[in-house]
Amino acid sequence: MLPTFQIPLPDESLRPLIQDKIDNLNKPKGSLGRLESLAMQVCLAQQTLTPSLAHPCHLLLGGDHGIEREGVSVSPREVTWQQMVNFTKGGGGVNMFCRQHGFHLRIVDVGVDHDLSQVPGIIDRKIALGTRNFLHSPAMTEAEYHRAFTVGVDLVDACAAEGCRILSIGEMGIANTSPSSIWMSLFCHIPLAECIGAGAGLNAQGISHKQAILQQALDRFLSTLNPQPSALNPHTLIRYFGGFEMVTAIAAMLRAAERRMLILVDGFIMTACALAACQLHPEAQAYMIFGHCGDESGHRRMLDFLHAEPLLSLGLRLGEGTGALCAFPIVDSAVRMMNEMNNFDNAQITKYF
Amino acid sequence: MLPTFQIPLPDESLRPLIQDKIDNLNKPKGSLGRLESLAMQVCLAQQTLTPSLAHPCHLLLGGDHGIEREGVSVSPREVTWQQMVNFTKGGGGVNMFCRQHGFHLRIVDVGVDHDLSQVPGIIDRKIALGTRNFLHSPAMTEAEYHRAFTVGVDLVDACAAEGCRILSIGEMGIANTSPSSIWMSLFCHIPLAECIGAGAGLNAQGISHKQAILQQALDRFLSTLNPQPSALNPHTLIRYFGGFEMVTAIAAMLRAAERRMLILVDGFIMTACALAACQLHPEAQAYMIFGHCGDESGHRRMLDFLHAEPLLSLGLRLGEGTGALCAFPIVDSAVRMMNEMNNFDNAQITKYF
Repeated sequence: MLPTFQIPLPDESLRPLIQDKIDNLNKPKGSLGRLESLAMQVCLAQQTLTPSLAHPCHLLLGGDHGIEREGVSVSPREVTWQQMVNFTKGGGGVNMFCRQHGFHLRIVDVGVDHDLSQVPGIIDRKIALGTRNFLHSPAMTEAEYHRAFTVGVDLVDACAAEGCRILSIGEMGIANTSPSSIWMSLFCHIPLAECIGAGAGLNAQGISHKQAILQQALDRFLSTLNPQPSALNPHTLIRYFGGFEMVTAIAAMLRAAERRMLILVDGFIMTACALAACQLHPEAQAYMIFGHCGDESGHRRMLDFLHAEPLLSLGLRLGEGTGALCAFPIVDSAVRMMNEMNNFDNAQITKYF
Repeated sequence: MLPTFQIPLPDESLRPLIQDKIDNLNKPKGSLGRLESLAMQVCLAQQTLTPSLAHPCHLLLGGDHGIEREGVSVSPREVTWQQMVNFTKGGGGVNMFCRQHGFHLRIVDVGVDHDLSQVPGIIDRKIALGTRNFLHSPAMTEAEYHRAFTVGVDLVDACAAEGCRILSIGEMGIANTSPSSIWMSLFCHIPLAECIGAGAGLNAQGISHKQAILQQALDRFLSTLNPQPSALNPHTLIRYFGGFEMVTAIAAMLRAAERRMLILVDGFIMTACALAACQLHPEAQAYMIFGHCGDESGHRRMLDFLHAEPLLSLGLRLGEGTGALCAFPIVDSAVRMMNEMNNFDNAQITKYF
């Protein structure tokens, strides 16, 4: 059975108290800009004046995609498992950022098309050896979809048991910009062509091929539908196109929100997952912090659709959650501001506003 | 005598080797975006493939301004010394960021209008009790100007003696957006009105008053000049309007560049100092990393004039160097990328580009 989620909307009655604390810190009012609005979000989400980022955890979820067989990605699918192994050795981008910012990294195989069960350092929660090719059929069965949800819930519960208050999620899955683009198109009502970009480095010809394939897949899906997509349950769309790592991420976001954990959202793919999660439970967005706006065409429009203001814009397009991790120190600064900065009363300074 | 600086231009012959190392890290080419261009700058500046950010230091320079007497600032001048004392107690914004990012903080009185010589934790290099009011006369004498330069050199030498490879500079000086605006106007050839903003929180009336005062000061200065300003030595302009904390910062930047130390540049005021430093020695800019683009009107245009791309844009306008410090983890990420990330050869991954 599909797990259900009871996500609390932050109680807004705390807002004036939080604002008062922020305004009385010894600085000109509003002078810490985005850190102040971020502190407000974090305090509301945690329902406290003294927020905590204890035990940050990063989930690195790996899965392969049937659609990769259509040549929609610049990289071959074997890169997924090779990179998963590489991450266990500490040499990937995600490892570097986790070390830098003190994140506990969990590398999880939820659907890689390779036997990784004997690789030390990879948590084996494999659902299948990659998804089916959604050009011809749904990417996963109902049962697989439910399993991916359960894995997401379990992983977050394990983090929570360690005391985690902030969760970051990254992905490794060759071709996973393709389902992301389709979700974006369907959920944001933006023509598919405007949702497709270069992924990890396609040239113009490659992008045009990717566009043709995805349009074909979308057209076929829509033609078999009754009722039309506007009346569809988001679950149907998520299951038809999604990757195992993506569905697991959606469930993890929802479970984290249910537990009032903060969620650091990465680039294009994880933003598509956040978008899907918010289609299921809009209240989850109160717990989401958007780390980075990447170069992938359409990412900015997806963020705009969510009225989300990302913290960074550094042109990252590596995936793995690196854009989310890179933004962590800014969240940390906002939290330290609330916990460490002096206020005008005890600093004995002429309050200059 | 004014210290002189021999600032080395980075040897460009290392560029292809650095680029080759970056391109062979196990990630799609270019996928770490701004971190890659930053790594290039850092490696060129330090002339190495394995850069270091050892022993980061932050100089917090305090000084008062004669022009404050004209009511150009929302805050009274006593806030300068009060905040300097507050910093010694660890409760300011700058303290929080220095703790977060492991910076050795030096709080230095170079011209505060208050006796701070007995306050533990403040380095006493006071030149005078604030500058003169540049509405009526040059802000400082030749001798004072030289002393400020010497202090800047001494401070950087002390950091370097500890092994510092990256320097950040902040300021505390009520009214110091005023000289910054005038420098910007004169060095960037932008009408003064377009260089003036709200400082720490002026309203429209306050801005209009500030504009009138600064225009009057500038007109008086220009009317006494022969030759006209285009032919002037930048030193003349810097000395006439600058604060002690600002001139010290300029000298510190030049000395740091001479020693191949990286320089994290903060917001509007420190960018004005960087601009002035580059007027004296354009080659210093190779060592400057612009941390943050703030809200102060004109900051973006000053950065554009320098062709500088700031790392963050978080609406900070606190000063103290907080915008520079906040950007440090991104520089750290770029350096870790060069030193910690695996390459395709030893990661045994299909090179996908």
